[in-house]
Amino acid sequence: MLKSRSFASDNNAPIHPEVLAAITNANNGDAIAYGDDAITQQAELLFKQHFGEDSEVFFVFNGTGANVTALAHLTKSYHALICAETAHIWHDECGAPEKFTGCKLHTLAAPNGKISVEQMLPLLHSVGFQHHSQPKIISITQATELGTVYSCNEIKEIADFAHNHDMLLHIDGARIANAAAALNVSFKEMILQTGVDVISFGGTKNGILLGEAVVFLRKELAKDFQFVRKQSMQLASKMRYISAQFIALLSNDLWLRNAQHANEMARLLAEKVQNFPEISITQKVQTNGVFANMPKHAIEKLQSNYFFYVWDNERSEVRWMTSFATTPQDIDNFVDALREALR
Amino acid sequence: MLKSRSFASDNNAPIHPEVLAAITNANNGDAIAYGDDAITQQAELLFKQHFGEDSEVFFVFNGTGANVTALAHLTKSYHALICAETAHIWHDECGAPEKFTGCKLHTLAAPNGKISVEQMLPLLHSVGFQHHSQPKIISITQATELGTVYSCNEIKEIADFAHNHDMLLHIDGARIANAAAALNVSFKEMILQTGVDVISFGGTKNGILLGEAVVFLRKELAKDFQFVRKQSMQLASKMRYISAQFIALLSNDLWLRNAQHANEMARLLAEKVQNFPEISITQKVQTNGVFANMPKHAIEKLQSNYFFYVWDNERSEVRWMTSFATTPQDIDNFVDALREALR
Amino acid sequence: MLKSRSFASDNNAPIHPEVLAAITNANNGDAIAYGDDAITQQAELLFKQHFGEDSEVFFVFNGTGANVTALAHLTKSYHALICAETAHIWHDECGAPEKFTGCKLHTLAAPNGKISVEQMLPLLHSVGFQHHSQPKIISITQATELGTVYSCNEIKEIADFAHNHDMLLHIDGARIANAAAALNVSFKEMILQTGVDVISFGGTKNGILLGEAVVFLRKELAKDFQFVRKQSMQLASKMRYISAQFIALLSNDLWLRNAQHANEMARLLAEKVQNFPEISITQKVQTNGVFANMPKHAIEKLQSNYFFYVWDNERSEVRWMTSFATTPQDIDNFVDALREALR
Amino acid sequence: MLKSRSFASDNNAPIHPEVLAAITNANNGDAIAYGDDAITQQAELLFKQHFGEDSEVFFVFNGTGANVTALAHLTKSYHALICAETAHIWHDECGAPEKFTGCKLHTLAAPNGKISVEQMLPLLHSVGFQHHSQPKIISITQATELGTVYSCNEIKEIADFAHNHDMLLHIDGARIANAAAALNVSFKEMILQTGVDVISFGGTKNGILLGEAVVFLRKELAKDFQFVRKQSMQLASKMRYISAQFIALLSNDLWLRNAQHANEMARLLAEKVQNFPEISITQKVQTNGVFANMPKHAIEKLQSNYFFYVWDNERSEVRWMTSFATTPQDIDNFVDALREALR
Repeated sequence: MLKSRSFASDNNAPIHPEVLAAITNANNGDAIAYGDDAITQQAELLFKQHFGEDSEVFFVFNGTGANVTALAHLTKSYHALICAETAHIWHDECGAPEKFTGCKLHTLAAPNGKISVEQMLPLLHSVGFQHHSQPKIISITQATELGTVYSCNEIKEIADFAHNHDMLLHIDGARIANAAAALNVSFKEMILQTGVDVISFGGTKNGILLGEAVVFLRKELAKDFQFVRKQSMQLASKMRYISAQFIALLSNDLWLRNAQHANEMARLLAEKVQNFPEISITQKVQTNGVFANMPKHAIEKLQSNYFFYVWDNERSEVRWMTSFATTPQDIDNFVDALREALR
Repeated sequence: MLKSRSFASDNNAPIHPEVLAAITNANNGDAIAYGDDAITQQAELLFKQHFGEDSEVFFVFNGTGANVTALAHLTKSYHALICAETAHIWHDECGAPEKFTGCKLHTLAAPNGKISVEQMLPLLHSVGFQHHSQPKIISITQATELGTVYSCNEIKEIADFAHNHDMLLHIDGARIANAAAALNVSFKEMILQTGVDVISFGGTKNGILLGEAVVFLRKELAKDFQFVRKQSMQLASKMRYISAQFIALLSNDLWLRNAQHANEMARLLAEKVQNFPEISITQKVQTNGVFANMPKHAIEKLQSNYFFYVWDNERSEVRWMTSFATTPQDIDNFVDALREALR
Repeated sequence: MLKSRSFASDNNAPIHPEVLAAITNANNGDAIAYGDDAITQQAELLFKQHFGEDSEVFFVFNGTGANVTALAHLTKSYHALICAETAHIWHDECGAPEKFTGCKLHTLAAPNGKISVEQMLPLLHSVGFQHHSQPKIISITQATELGTVYSCNEIKEIADFAHNHDMLLHIDGARIANAAAALNVSFKEMILQTGVDVISFGGTKNGILLGEAVVFLRKELAKDFQFVRKQSMQLASKMRYISAQFIALLSNDLWLRNAQHANEMARLLAEKVQNFPEISITQKVQTNGVFANMPKHAIEKLQSNYFFYVWDNERSEVRWMTSFATTPQDIDNFVDALREALR
Repeated sequence: MLKSRSFASDNNAPIHPEVLAAITNANNGDAIAYGDDAITQQAELLFKQHFGEDSEVFFVFNGTGANVTALAHLTKSYHALICAETAHIWHDECGAPEKFTGCKLHTLAAPNGKISVEQMLPLLHSVGFQHHSQPKIISITQATELGTVYSCNEIKEIADFAHNHDMLLHIDGARIANAAAALNVSFKEMILQTGVDVISFGGTKNGILLGEAVVFLRKELAKDFQFVRKQSMQLASKMRYISAQFIALLSNDLWLRNAQHANEMARLLAEKVQNFPEISITQKVQTNGVFANMPKHAIEKLQSNYFFYVWDNERSEVRWMTSFATTPQDIDNFVDALREALR
């Protein structure tokens, strides 16, 4: 274990006690494997409440698994995917999307983590031209890898554009709860009503042990996805233990409490660090991450006590993430160490 | 939950209490993600004790993930894999090996789940012939899908054959613990000393929540495997919780106690059912499965009270699996129900 | 060049003079690349005359390219293909179908090169079961790799079975002309009216330099295939020279004359060799191949003068292929050499 | 056929008469298929003369096939390729490199078609980081897609950089002859002595019917490539006809005469069009392409008489390609039409 709170990533956090309790409670006798159990059925019902009656949910192991299976399911290998240059599917999955979909990825500049319809227009020139991969899915991350969020209107605009050009909209929702908390909207408002087609719904970064969910917003899109999941090595045999965690997360607003708390801790951190003239915050603090430029020597000093990542070495930019487990005291201690490091 | 003990699969069983306790104990503060934590380092050391100093272990999510990443890592797409027609990689992974390795799978008849060097000889005709996939990996399952086991000598013979023909030997060890218990040998004797190159080491079917391990027996074979694991969507972020389970499993001989118990329950079941003249056991009961022919009408009746699979509908053959959680009382109850069903 | 006629394969033959003339005639000034030229348009019209107005043809480089692109286009990677164990797609394409479709191939025993609906029934058990690849395409070879042919009724029966189970029927027609000649039917009767979905239409083995065609029998099946062809590295830039060859082949019944002649030469050869008591013909001689068992010592002697393949070493079985270029004199010379070798 | 000379691409040109004669001459009797014939052996010897005794050549069907098989052979799917954003492998192969290698492609800005070592430095940050694809092959195009050429020193610098970082250098040489003609160097000087590892050697754009060659500069790199070629659907059965073309091309300096002539025609065209004040040439005219900005209305007018491509619609930039078949009279006629169009 780390001796101090990690500010490196929300996946450095432990399991939330309510989630661990759910696992323990599920550990009672035998259950049919591969999702044919009562706990999984209950979890599926909960997802329908959050994403609509026509939605279909499938549990997988991790975020890369959720993204890649969703994208592979809805494409042929001659299709192209469109995403931000900061997107996890482009930058942090060791080429899994290329390997498993066979598709080309077109990346768009995204200084604040977000991409816009205007940027996608030139890619339409490829449509119908046999030498070019055919644009098929736009994938956006909500909240973005830079801690920012798309408004519901912005999502809807991209969804409409996608549908007007025979494309689909995928959301990488590894931190979708943080985004919903930030926007103060329900998943139905943010995902279903904006026209999103499929979302990778994150659990691991919001307090569970392990597990993500692929949610198709329209049942027809989910047809045969079970085979993609299995073939992609993402079907858990003891499924009940993943399902139980999602029941805990979606019950009693745990997902929201965790996300709100993590966001609040980032806001608190940002508030405190902006008093240091040597530090400049580089992105809007809308969810649970704070991006900031600070002197190189201070980074090294601070890292001797705290684990976090340098985001951009050249710009001397760091990323600090908070989680459900971060406490106000953790923030105070961190800010003290930061003050010390800046001397 | 099922109202009665499942005889369908050892993955219908719950988490062993010692494993659940290990998860709970690991849930203490923050930890670096993706395996760079102290718990994972401890687990890796334990594996070296069981598989030799030159071995390297990598944790993945499930058995298909372990098999496919191991095979993909050691092949190019023009290679061929050789396995039993009953092999999980051929029969039960929805084509994941073909999709992710690109390789051809050659299946060999295996009435008792086992394959032999003699059967592989004709495949050597393809070596060097540009129109044919090139044989590269032999994959055997230990214990087999039919509950039988290869002796150490049999494994060594196949390993020698593989190495003599520029091939490698992979073991699908989803039930490797049951095999080791049956043969009363250590993993070093069965795997390292016989010349196996890589093994998918099973945990899920032996009492853990979720997790399997790919163990390369020689470090050189493991080079760059980390990238295959990540690209194959098999890298857990909160790795400590998988590692903690394996520490529990490999400590205090839990792996062996669980496997011995499961094997013993199968032996007990076999002993009792062989008294029924309507039932004939079709495979040697060497590990934790009992295969038997029985009248169709009795199958249906018994299935109304107990969950298990018909293995071969035409032959009216069933498969009954036991696990660490099966009790002698479960066996008695099951045999009572069976007696009733046979009337 | 070989000093004597090859009996190894119809692809050892040269280019038919009418085809070479067509290439020479096409070599006149500039033409738009990639199929947007007048010669290609003319070739496409000719194919519609042979396969119906709703058909769509795409030219590719070789037989493996035709098979693999057709199969990849109509499948997702979790599908399964069904074929004879003698099928080129299973046996002679170095795993290209597995690599490029990602699909599992189920092979059926085919002592005479042909498979039947009865053999496919057990594979239907997998339908809807998430652990198994889903049967999607039946691929048969016409004429088969053993020189035999399916009757139109047999093709229709398989097509009906395929369609009744949400599958499609593909024909590997590397020697489709020989089959049509043998059955004395048009392509419309054999392919369109029987319900075939897609055919790899062979040219190379019937007298052209290089080129095969993928013909979809219904336009809807061809949608977006152009991208599969390009991505599969099968789009020729100077397409006119492939198209010109097919125009030659489909004009003045050259395809039929070549095939009839090749078939007739095989019939003649079979007629003559059956006089030798040491030789037994092992397959019906329906097209342009003769399969026969003969003494090993005589094989070696004959091979010192003639190039041909041993088909099955254990059975001492040889394959002799004829082509449009084989002459009655070639047959006489070969039979003389055979007589000599048998002494 | 087009009524006037095409300025769209060198692949709009016909077959050079010497090449067609070579095909005709090869059409003499039977020959063993798949490259085991005397003509192919002779062609292979010629390639060794041009690329060194330790080189190995393999003939394939087209440029995409050459590029993709070379790249797939030398990579695992977790590798990354580095190329210019203008590269054919990125821009014009419908995602074939992604589909068949599984690799990520990193593109670098290349206003003049060329990339430099400085641009690649940031990509080295990914080395050894399991979340990122691992840089493995640098691919440059010579001559570039913009008609420019790398000097031998520039190639050597990139090759050295590649080798210093455990990478390889691939050249897409679809127009390698034009580059060699422009630099007035032999292939040995430009390719072997600079340290290139593998080249896609182009034939189709320099006067042959169809065919490209993959040349590995060191035999060890070629090991097992035959299987990649076959599995990639790039093995011609009647290989002699591809080999014969390459013999013609590499004999009597035909490759050089064709390339010099095409280059000279582009130089002549550039010389003439630079007299028009409405036209500005945008790239150095080093090989057989002229890139120029010109008024939109004139483009449309000119296109009614001549076939060529608009390269960049926004910038009103066109591309004019010349070939071995372009004559000085063609240039004069074209310039006359251009003058007319500009009025």
